[in-house]
Amino acid sequence: MTLVLSELSQDIQNAVQATREEVAALHAELPANNLVVWTAGNVSSRVPGADLFVIKPSGVRYDELSADAMVVCTLDGNKIVDGTPDRLSPSSDTAAHAYVYRHMPEVGGVVHTHSTYATAFAAVHRPIPCVLTMMGDEFGGEVPVGPFAIIGDDSIGRGIVETLRESRSPAVLMANHGPFTIGKNATGAVKAAVMVEEVARTVAAAEQIGTLVPVAQEHIDSLYDRYQNVYGQH
Amino acid sequence: MTLVLSELSQDIQNAVQATREEVAALHAELPANNLVVWTAGNVSSRVPGADLFVIKPSGVRYDELSADAMVVCTLDGNKIVDGTPDRLSPSSDTAAHAYVYRHMPEVGGVVHTHSTYATAFAAVHRPIPCVLTMMGDEFGGEVPVGPFAIIGDDSIGRGIVETLRESRSPAVLMANHGPFTIGKNATGAVKAAVMVEEVARTVAAAEQIGTLVPVAQEHIDSLYDRYQNVYGQH
Amino acid sequence: MTLVLSELSQDIQNAVQATREEVAALHAELPANNLVVWTAGNVSSRVPGADLFVIKPSGVRYDELSADAMVVCTLDGNKIVDGTPDRLSPSSDTAAHAYVYRHMPEVGGVVHTHSTYATAFAAVHRPIPCVLTMMGDEFGGEVPVGPFAIIGDDSIGRGIVETLRESRSPAVLMANHGPFTIGKNATGAVKAAVMVEEVARTVAAAEQIGTLVPVAQEHIDSLYDRYQNVYGQH
Amino acid sequence: MTLVLSELSQDIQNAVQATREEVAALHAELPANNLVVWTAGNVSSRVPGADLFVIKPSGVRYDELSADAMVVCTLDGNKIVDGTPDRLSPSSDTAAHAYVYRHMPEVGGVVHTHSTYATAFAAVHRPIPCVLTMMGDEFGGEVPVGPFAIIGDDSIGRGIVETLRESRSPAVLMANHGPFTIGKNATGAVKAAVMVEEVARTVAAAEQIGTLVPVAQEHIDSLYDRYQNVYGQH
Repeated sequence: MTLVLSELSQDIQNAVQATREEVAALHAELPANNLVVWTAGNVSSRVPGADLFVIKPSGVRYDELSADAMVVCTLDGNKIVDGTPDRLSPSSDTAAHAYVYRHMPEVGGVVHTHSTYATAFAAVHRPIPCVLTMMGDEFGGEVPVGPFAIIGDDSIGRGIVETLRESRSPAVLMANHGPFTIGKNATGAVKAAVMVEEVARTVAAAEQIGTLVPVAQEHIDSLYDRYQNVYGQH
Repeated sequence: MTLVLSELSQDIQNAVQATREEVAALHAELPANNLVVWTAGNVSSRVPGADLFVIKPSGVRYDELSADAMVVCTLDGNKIVDGTPDRLSPSSDTAAHAYVYRHMPEVGGVVHTHSTYATAFAAVHRPIPCVLTMMGDEFGGEVPVGPFAIIGDDSIGRGIVETLRESRSPAVLMANHGPFTIGKNATGAVKAAVMVEEVARTVAAAEQIGTLVPVAQEHIDSLYDRYQNVYGQH
Repeated sequence: MTLVLSELSQDIQNAVQATREEVAALHAELPANNLVVWTAGNVSSRVPGADLFVIKPSGVRYDELSADAMVVCTLDGNKIVDGTPDRLSPSSDTAAHAYVYRHMPEVGGVVHTHSTYATAFAAVHRPIPCVLTMMGDEFGGEVPVGPFAIIGDDSIGRGIVETLRESRSPAVLMANHGPFTIGKNATGAVKAAVMVEEVARTVAAAEQIGTLVPVAQEHIDSLYDRYQNVYGQH
Repeated sequence: MTLVLSELSQDIQNAVQATREEVAALHAELPANNLVVWTAGNVSSRVPGADLFVIKPSGVRYDELSADAMVVCTLDGNKIVDGTPDRLSPSSDTAAHAYVYRHMPEVGGVVHTHSTYATAFAAVHRPIPCVLTMMGDEFGGEVPVGPFAIIGDDSIGRGIVETLRESRSPAVLMANHGPFTIGKNATGAVKAAVMVEEVARTVAAAEQIGTLVPVAQEHIDSLYDRYQNVYGQH
C-alpha cells in the first residue's frame, strides 16, 4: 500500500511543506560552500511528527531545486505519492539516509557530499586527526573513517551508523566514497558537512608544512563539553 | 564548394539555431565551474540530423559568447557561411573536435579545457587512478593519458580517439596539454569535464595525506554497470 | 551595576552607532575574502571616546549581521544593555578581544578567523617565515606563533598580547587554533587578517615547489620602515 | 615644470580619458581572476600618442577604482596635474612601471600582482618550467625569475627589463616579490598576469603528483611561432 500525501492529515501535510522548503533552501548551502559540483550531494530532513523524510530528487541541478521538487519518502526509503512527477525519483543515496533515520532516532537531518578534502581523507582511509581546537568543539575528537561499501543493499547505511555510534563526531568519512554527516536537524547536518570540509582542508594543508601537533585528550574533552553544553544553550 | 546556412533546409536551420543556443549556454558552465580562464576552453555539439557541428569562436571572452557568435562547421572542421562575421573563426582546437565527430559517431558533444588538476596529471603523464566510487560511476576506472601531440595535423584528434576507444572513460588527459571529454550530447561532455577536474583535485589532495587505496575491479564494474544502466534509466 | 546604552551621553551613543555600522560592514569582508565559513570568525572595534567595544554576536550567520545586531561590551567583556535582544550574546571569543583592548591601548580593532592556511601553520606550531617582500611591508618579519590556550580564562588574551609585544607583526597564530590580528582600527585588523592568510597560502605553496629563500634582515627593516612610515603618510 | 592635463591638446586629453577608462575596467579583472587581495596589484597603460601613462592610485580598494581615480604620470613616473585630488598618489610600484615604458618602447601595458602560485615560485627563486603546451603558446618557454630588488631606486624596473630582454616570456617572477607582466597593450599584460598564475598553479599541482615531463624545445618553438604569428593574425 502506497502512502498518498494528500490523504494524510493536514498537520502532516503542513509539516511536509515546511520541511520541503527548508531542505530546498539548505541545498543552496552546498554549492555556496563549494561542497558539490553538478548534481552531486544531497540533504534530507525528517518530517517532524511523521515517519517520513524529505530528500533531493536524483539527477537534478542545484539551480532547479525548488521546494516542490523535493521528494517525500517513508523511513523504508520509498517515495510516496507526493505530488511530484513520477520522473523525479529520490536521490540514489536515499537508502543510506533511510537507514540512518530508522536506526538513530535522535537524528533529524542527514547530508552527503563528495567535498574535496574530506573525500581525499576517505580515499586514503585515514581519519582526520584532532589537531585544531575547532575540531574539539565540533567533532569532539578525530573524524572517523567508515567501511568500504557500495550501493545496492544496507551496507552504506549500516557502515555510517556503526561508525558514528562509536564516536562523538557528527561526520563519518565513508572509505573511497565521501563524508556523510548528521544533525539534530537538517541545518545541523549541513553545518557538519561545511565544518568537516573546512577542517579536512586545513589539516591537509598543515601536513604539507610541518608536523601535526595533536590537541591533548583532556583539552578535547573540555572544548567539546563547553561547546555542546554551555555554548549551545546560549 | 562552401555550404551556406541560409540555403539549407529550414529543419536544419532550426536545428543549428537550437544547437547554437545550447552551446552558448553550456560555455557559461566552464567559468562557473572554474575550469577555464580568459578565452581558454571550448565546447562543441553535433547538430542533430546534419553533418555539422557548432563550436566556440576563437579568442572571444566568456562574457561575449552569445548564441549568434557560435560558429558552424562541417565535419571536416571548416566553417560554413553561417551568418557570423568573417573575423569569427572557429576555435583553434576545431580540427580535434572534428576528428572525434568523424570517427566516433556515437559522440554528440566534445569539451576541451585546461582545468588545473586534470592538466597537472597530464603534465606528468599519469592516469588518474580509480580510488573513488564516483570514478567507478562516471569513468568506469582510471582516466587515461593520451599521447603528446601538437596542433597542425590530425594527431590530437587521433590521440583522443585511440585512447578513448580502449577505455570506458569519457575523458582523456592529452599529455602536457589538458583534458578532452566526450558525451552523447554536449551537456554530457560538459559534465565529464566538470567531473574529471573534481576527481583529479580530490586524488591529488589524497596523495598528499596518505597512501591511495584502489577500488577493486569487481566493485568498479558493479558501480559502472549500475550507474550507466540502472541509474541512467531513471 | 550594568551600563545602559540609552543612558549614556549622546556623543557616546553616536559613536556606538557609527562603530556598529563599521563593524557590521567589515564582517562582510571575512566571507568575501574566504576567511570564514558558517558563523566562524569575528571582528571587534573599540568605540572612540568610550571604554567600550563592539563585537559580533555569537552564532549568527554572516548574511544576518546588521549593525543593529552588533553587541556592545565594556572592556571587561561584559555585554551592556545595548538595545539588542538578550538572546544575542557576544562572540564566545569576546574575553580574548577584551583582554587585548585592556592591555594594548594603541589597538583599536581585533579580528579572529580560522582561515585555512594561517590555521594550518598554527596546527604545526610554525611561524610563517619572512620570504616575501610583502611580509616585510606588512609584518616586519615572520608571523609568530602564540601558546596553546583554551577558552575559559584569560589565557588566550594573554597569549595574544605577550606574543604580539615581542614582534612587529599585527598577526599572531595561536597554536592549534588560528590567527588573531590587531590594528589601529578595525579596518586595519581586517586587512591584517586578509594579508596573513594571503602570505600563509603563498608560503605553503612555495614550500611544495622548492627551498624557501629568506629575505635578509636589513631588507626587511628597510621595507618595514618605508611601508609604515613613508608610504603610510601618503 | 609640472604638466597640467587641461593645458594639453584636446587629442591628448581624449586619449588620456580613453586610457583611464580602459585601465579602470581592467583592474576589475584582477580580483575577478583571484590575482589580488585588498589593494595589492596594479595595471598601467601607455597613453597612445603621448609620453604619459595611466596607473592605479595607491592604497585604493578595488570597488572604488573609477576611471576618474586613475592617475596620469610622465614616463619619469611623476604624477601630472591630472584633475585627481592631491591625496591620490600613483601606486608605490610606479617607478618600476615607468622604467619599463622608458626602456621597452614596444610595451604598451604593465601589470604587477602578488598572485599566489606565481609568487610562490618567486619565493623559491625558481623559474616555472615549460611542461605545458599552453606555456609554449603564451610564454615561448619557461617563465624566468628576476633579481631580488626593493623599492627606492630603479633596481626593480631594471631587473624586470633585463630579465625580459633575455626571454620570450611576457612575465617575470621578481625574486621574493611577485610577477610583473607586459603586453603590447594593457589588456595583453593583464592576460599574461592571468596566464602566469594559471600555469604556476598547474605546474605546482603537477609536481605534487609525479615527475614533470618537459616539452621538447622544437615543440615549444613550433607552438610559440604558430600562436604568435599564425593564430595571432586571425
